[in-house]
Amino acid sequence: MNALPPFLSQETLTAYRRLFHRHAETGMAEFWTTARIAEELETFGLSPVVGEQVSAPQARMGVPEDDTLLAARRRAEEEGASQQWLERMNGVTGVVADLRPDLPLHTVLRFDIDAVDVTESCEDSHRPRKEGFASLHEGVSHACGHDGHIAIGLGLAHALAPLRDGLKHNVRLLFQPGEEGCRGAQAMAAAGWIEGARHVLAAHIGMRADEDHALVCGAQGFLATTKFDVTFRGRAAHAGAEPHRGANSLLAAASAALNMHALPRHGEGDSRVTVGRLEAGSGRNTIPALARMACETRGATSAVNDYMFEHCRAILEHTAAMYEQACHIRIMGGSKSADSDESMRHIVREAARLVPWFRPELIRDSAPGFGSDDACVYMDAVQHQGGDAAYLMLGSRLAAGHHAPDFDFHESVLPPSVELLTHIILALDER
Amino acid sequence: MNALPPFLSQETLTAYRRLFHRHAETGMAEFWTTARIAEELETFGLSPVVGEQVSAPQARMGVPEDDTLLAARRRAEEEGASQQWLERMNGVTGVVADLRPDLPLHTVLRFDIDAVDVTESCEDSHRPRKEGFASLHEGVSHACGHDGHIAIGLGLAHALAPLRDGLKHNVRLLFQPGEEGCRGAQAMAAAGWIEGARHVLAAHIGMRADEDHALVCGAQGFLATTKFDVTFRGRAAHAGAEPHRGANSLLAAASAALNMHALPRHGEGDSRVTVGRLEAGSGRNTIPALARMACETRGATSAVNDYMFEHCRAILEHTAAMYEQACHIRIMGGSKSADSDESMRHIVREAARLVPWFRPELIRDSAPGFGSDDACVYMDAVQHQGGDAAYLMLGSRLAAGHHAPDFDFHESVLPPSVELLTHIILALDER
Amino acid sequence: MNALPPFLSQETLTAYRRLFHRHAETGMAEFWTTARIAEELETFGLSPVVGEQVSAPQARMGVPEDDTLLAARRRAEEEGASQQWLERMNGVTGVVADLRPDLPLHTVLRFDIDAVDVTESCEDSHRPRKEGFASLHEGVSHACGHDGHIAIGLGLAHALAPLRDGLKHNVRLLFQPGEEGCRGAQAMAAAGWIEGARHVLAAHIGMRADEDHALVCGAQGFLATTKFDVTFRGRAAHAGAEPHRGANSLLAAASAALNMHALPRHGEGDSRVTVGRLEAGSGRNTIPALARMACETRGATSAVNDYMFEHCRAILEHTAAMYEQACHIRIMGGSKSADSDESMRHIVREAARLVPWFRPELIRDSAPGFGSDDACVYMDAVQHQGGDAAYLMLGSRLAAGHHAPDFDFHESVLPPSVELLTHIILALDER
Amino acid sequence: MNALPPFLSQETLTAYRRLFHRHAETGMAEFWTTARIAEELETFGLSPVVGEQVSAPQARMGVPEDDTLLAARRRAEEEGASQQWLERMNGVTGVVADLRPDLPLHTVLRFDIDAVDVTESCEDSHRPRKEGFASLHEGVSHACGHDGHIAIGLGLAHALAPLRDGLKHNVRLLFQPGEEGCRGAQAMAAAGWIEGARHVLAAHIGMRADEDHALVCGAQGFLATTKFDVTFRGRAAHAGAEPHRGANSLLAAASAALNMHALPRHGEGDSRVTVGRLEAGSGRNTIPALARMACETRGATSAVNDYMFEHCRAILEHTAAMYEQACHIRIMGGSKSADSDESMRHIVREAARLVPWFRPELIRDSAPGFGSDDACVYMDAVQHQGGDAAYLMLGSRLAAGHHAPDFDFHESVLPPSVELLTHIILALDER
Repeated sequence: MNALPPFLSQETLTAYRRLFHRHAETGMAEFWTTARIAEELETFGLSPVVGEQVSAPQARMGVPEDDTLLAARRRAEEEGASQQWLERMNGVTGVVADLRPDLPLHTVLRFDIDAVDVTESCEDSHRPRKEGFASLHEGVSHACGHDGHIAIGLGLAHALAPLRDGLKHNVRLLFQPGEEGCRGAQAMAAAGWIEGARHVLAAHIGMRADEDHALVCGAQGFLATTKFDVTFRGRAAHAGAEPHRGANSLLAAASAALNMHALPRHGEGDSRVTVGRLEAGSGRNTIPALARMACETRGATSAVNDYMFEHCRAILEHTAAMYEQACHIRIMGGSKSADSDESMRHIVREAARLVPWFRPELIRDSAPGFGSDDACVYMDAVQHQGGDAAYLMLGSRLAAGHHAPDFDFHESVLPPSVELLTHIILALDER
Repeated sequence: MNALPPFLSQETLTAYRRLFHRHAETGMAEFWTTARIAEELETFGLSPVVGEQVSAPQARMGVPEDDTLLAARRRAEEEGASQQWLERMNGVTGVVADLRPDLPLHTVLRFDIDAVDVTESCEDSHRPRKEGFASLHEGVSHACGHDGHIAIGLGLAHALAPLRDGLKHNVRLLFQPGEEGCRGAQAMAAAGWIEGARHVLAAHIGMRADEDHALVCGAQGFLATTKFDVTFRGRAAHAGAEPHRGANSLLAAASAALNMHALPRHGEGDSRVTVGRLEAGSGRNTIPALARMACETRGATSAVNDYMFEHCRAILEHTAAMYEQACHIRIMGGSKSADSDESMRHIVREAARLVPWFRPELIRDSAPGFGSDDACVYMDAVQHQGGDAAYLMLGSRLAAGHHAPDFDFHESVLPPSVELLTHIILALDER
Repeated sequence: MNALPPFLSQETLTAYRRLFHRHAETGMAEFWTTARIAEELETFGLSPVVGEQVSAPQARMGVPEDDTLLAARRRAEEEGASQQWLERMNGVTGVVADLRPDLPLHTVLRFDIDAVDVTESCEDSHRPRKEGFASLHEGVSHACGHDGHIAIGLGLAHALAPLRDGLKHNVRLLFQPGEEGCRGAQAMAAAGWIEGARHVLAAHIGMRADEDHALVCGAQGFLATTKFDVTFRGRAAHAGAEPHRGANSLLAAASAALNMHALPRHGEGDSRVTVGRLEAGSGRNTIPALARMACETRGATSAVNDYMFEHCRAILEHTAAMYEQACHIRIMGGSKSADSDESMRHIVREAARLVPWFRPELIRDSAPGFGSDDACVYMDAVQHQGGDAAYLMLGSRLAAGHHAPDFDFHESVLPPSVELLTHIILALDER
Repeated sequence: MNALPPFLSQETLTAYRRLFHRHAETGMAEFWTTARIAEELETFGLSPVVGEQVSAPQARMGVPEDDTLLAARRRAEEEGASQQWLERMNGVTGVVADLRPDLPLHTVLRFDIDAVDVTESCEDSHRPRKEGFASLHEGVSHACGHDGHIAIGLGLAHALAPLRDGLKHNVRLLFQPGEEGCRGAQAMAAAGWIEGARHVLAAHIGMRADEDHALVCGAQGFLATTKFDVTFRGRAAHAGAEPHRGANSLLAAASAALNMHALPRHGEGDSRVTVGRLEAGSGRNTIPALARMACETRGATSAVNDYMFEHCRAILEHTAAMYEQACHIRIMGGSKSADSDESMRHIVREAARLVPWFRPELIRDSAPGFGSDDACVYMDAVQHQGGDAAYLMLGSRLAAGHHAPDFDFHESVLPPSVELLTHIILALDER
């Protein structure tokens, strides 16, 4: 391999990361973030795609209400987002950039861009606070490290752009909205961005590589998942005078929740079911006529997850009938199970040898997945079309666990991550 | 009986009712209402008592948070409440007025003054809307007729004031806060306002007398009740990665709700149990670590209600232990069961013969109570000290059921109600 | 009223009672009992009806399995039951006897003849044991006093037979099988034995008249009831290897039981629901594929009971669907709610004045019913055809509560009960 | 290795298997079986140990009631069991035989000897029926192949006995009672029979080697398990008259069952919980005052199983308190999780090369465990004292799944299994 052009410096990558950290936006409402990514990619000479092309409309899940989206867009404008890019987005977030659109698609990389619904710590010991780049937005923060992922994605685009002419295949960068809740990937896949790809890569800072200089070449065993919201509508009645005239939505939800959690363990692998939120009823002395639940199932395989979700659906529908409720189930997100391929893990390991920051004794071939990640939607799709996939974990000492208010990572991971991915892509291009 | 001085006119009573209707305030936060009642009573020559004397502090239940109270007081000021009376109230609502404080207490009348958490109808067909006296306050309205009760209470005070010198005993008027949720009576009783009373009266517009010119002389069988809030605090955990580390507050609440509703029917009379509201959990993928429930029990007798509440408490505490939750149960209100006495019903019936508006064929000796009313706290107390009680239902055609957004009553009931109560008091004074 | 012929003596009635006590037989299997009653009635000159005419086949409920019936019949033969009457019965128990079949039906009396599934006490202090007339049959005894009812019914038949020519209307005696579990009455009513009746009487020893010389002229407020058995059939699976392949009947039954008990209290009167027995599963390590439940609902009115049963049915069917169970619900018994009529209570009270054993100060006009009794099926039917009904409680000091192993009553109640009923019938005949 | 003396023939091993098949006895009651094994071992020149030395009394679990044991012993006598051995057993089943008691213990082999509570198929197509060796005992059969295990154990004893003088270490054969329900191993381990062992072997016919000529060298991932029985004792009451006086055992059990099944999935590996049997209540109209449950938990690791069992215990105890029940939990059996060691699998594989019946292409290094087996108690113990363990699966075409009424295996597996184990032991003896 010949000498590569210079990579973006630590300072620049850190600045990128902190910029996006300040402007943290939640899933499907990443207006400022999308506009800024597109602007930067354009300065590298790429032609980013935004707007309705990015995500298949009928496959988008968990999109907030219209007024929430409108408010998010207005705030982006107030914070200086490019008016031109906002208009092109037309309400849909996320960016796609091809390095060589003229060549057949070979490798796809996914970078997730959304923040989480976590109020950032205001302790002085929390570095974003101390060094002045904490989230500007109450209740929202980059407590999952996606700000770092964006910085790495931009660093990679910057590194590959000057090498474009030498590439033998197309390389595609997906800056995906709504990874939290597994909302964004299915719609991007449904829009065709994976078709024909032979390799797919995703990377996450931290997780099982939670110390500096560590690397997991390919994670295994992410759980398939389905996220869904449930509404029960019953009939109110005076709880003292005529409780028998009511149709009790609260009890229906309570019974459904218990029965869903009591679904049998699956003999073919791990399963999960969680009712994460339940709100039912209004006044103390009125039979509750409305209940809402936010639920999810998971499975070691997509089949196990399907078993769990289908049985939850049956429980919900039959409990609703039992309690004379109208029942509405809305899918809010979902992902597949997937494993990293051995061949890809090998390529990652070889590439890591070219990046001395990663210490050999801290490089692991594999590690268990960490919950669910909708990168698996792409991985599963590419594997089904005969290609290979890898999900990397990039080593960083963490200040706290993912999604904790005082989550923070060590920015020293950014430059070596850009280098590593560049080497991987060049190696894959030779395959 | 000699000729009585003139009663307040239909116009004046209607104006009073509409004034309080516009300034609807919820329980324990009736600042504007209390100040205005006190002002009016003073103009009649009475010496109203307000503030901490009115309610025993340790017995007050269901008092809103401090900032809610402060906001309610500020709003009252902005709407022109007397600064002087607000200061005397010192945060505590409700008024007591004695006709002859120099004589032994003989008869107590209760008028409840709070509005309910119901958003008033904005249909043109709703008279308060059409005639311009709808509630000024979003989400709060006099949908239970207590505005009419205040008007009757003021009308009665106005009628009795000039007769004071002729009275042989003291007559006490209680303008009670927080009847909704049965929050106000126990603290007023605990403050000693019932001690020594030989008669107690309460009256409600509508209920089982829901046509004009009707009257129920004494209702029977109000349900005893306990209102309580429950908090479960557990332990959050990532629902995908380590659900076993959580202590699930949502499931605990669901299980407790089911088991409370499954308490056995009581062989000695009607019982009720309702979890009217349940809120648990936050994120979809986190084991819920907090749940709140608003509950109530009821019983045909206080013993049945005690059975229900004590068994609910046991279910809550043991379910909490089972699910590793910290459990907090807070009593928010309560009332006794009570019946009207035959001797009082007789006096009411005789007095009604003097008020032709009440049509003989529409006068019923008795009727079943309507849910619970904490007037029963006074009734039970007076009966236990050897006295008699009656709960009247005053006939009025209703536009909709109590607590419905379009509830309204026919104001023609106000003048005859004032007359009726005046005659009853004068008759009791002779006993 | 002219002098009556002599009644059966205390000795004879006591002997009858003890005879039937020894040969205690459970509901719908009263072979020995039926044959003996028929024989006795024949000796009084009556023409008892037995067999399939007695009960409408399609309306019979809770009939035991064929081999149980066969064994009961064989045992009756071994114990000397009349072969001729057993043949006429053709497997169906119960007897009907008309005093004047040639005249229009006027008054019906119900005597229940079955024993209960209770093992009789073997304490020496238990009189049937001490005096040698304890039940011959393990696990079955007359712990509800129906042996006394038979003795009274025979005493009444003996008293009325010589008076037959003077009667102006027909009087019908029903010796009903299967009162326990409310199994026998509906089929006798469906067979037409109540059609045209203007009065109906039933009587029970003890209950609210649990001291000697007492009498309740007419009980009020028996609960309507439905008895039903439920079977869930699911799918077994190895609990360790593949629990997800099972369809768990035990959990389905557990969930249904909880949800049935959690049905709302009814605002219009007392309700009950009980799963009295649940058997589910077999081996510890197999997902249970079979569950059986024995259930009942009750209601202050038939409408309340219907509400309870229909909601139980919905819960069972929907829970079965939720847990992939085949569900079978079989009605095993049922009764209506009914009250005694004032006019009949008056006649009973007047008749009791002619029987000095009943002490005036222990005669009550009315008392609350005691659970359910399917005599109410006849009472409800006669009242619907414009007639009157009464359910008497006959005073007797009890050794223990009804259905207790050491239940026993004082046989001194037998002769006055025969006299009382004779006087009532003669009085009704004059109406 | 020198030439070995001749092994027992197919005919002899088949005859052994069929003999024990006919005399199938359930766990802890294997009187005939134990006596006969001891007799045979004695004929080979060994000195079998039986009776109380075999199992530590305080560690025995799931032992049947005394009268059941007595009946089983009597039946064994009637079927010709050696009176002398029965006396030495003194009520305790199982046999231990040492090859060289004078040398340090080196290798332990476990053979389980109990039958299961399954009624054997009476179809003509079922070979034990067709060829006349079906179980003599209603409801009990060797539907898990332990009859074959005994035959193999005897064949091995016969093969090793003449080689004793050449052994360098002691070899111990455990003929263990009560493997079903995991009842027997803990008490034999507690009696000290594993102390000092460096290798332990167990073998099972079929399972994941369910075709002739197949072999699994060492199974992995047996689930740890706890078997327990639960009794709730409450308070009966008349379901119609005074349900509130009861303490409902059936509902308590239903609620506990639901809540146990709703325990969270464990993030660190598979878990299971099953209430396999529930019996509650008696009469339909009585609040149930007794409930019994047969339960089990399992876990991928002993820690996971402990988590499940301890949480079940908490649920049971707190539910009992909630429903005013006395709660009794009795441990009926248990096992650990364990994996086969690589070094042992290697030795098994090498030995299998000396037994041509096992076809190389059907020999698998490993396979997942099949539920739970208390051989893992020994495996775990030996591994904790630094030794190695293997659990073999011996290939046989099965007529039906384990525990099915028509389970049967192909007896051709017996001779090669004896040979294989002999070679393994000789190889281990050289280690």
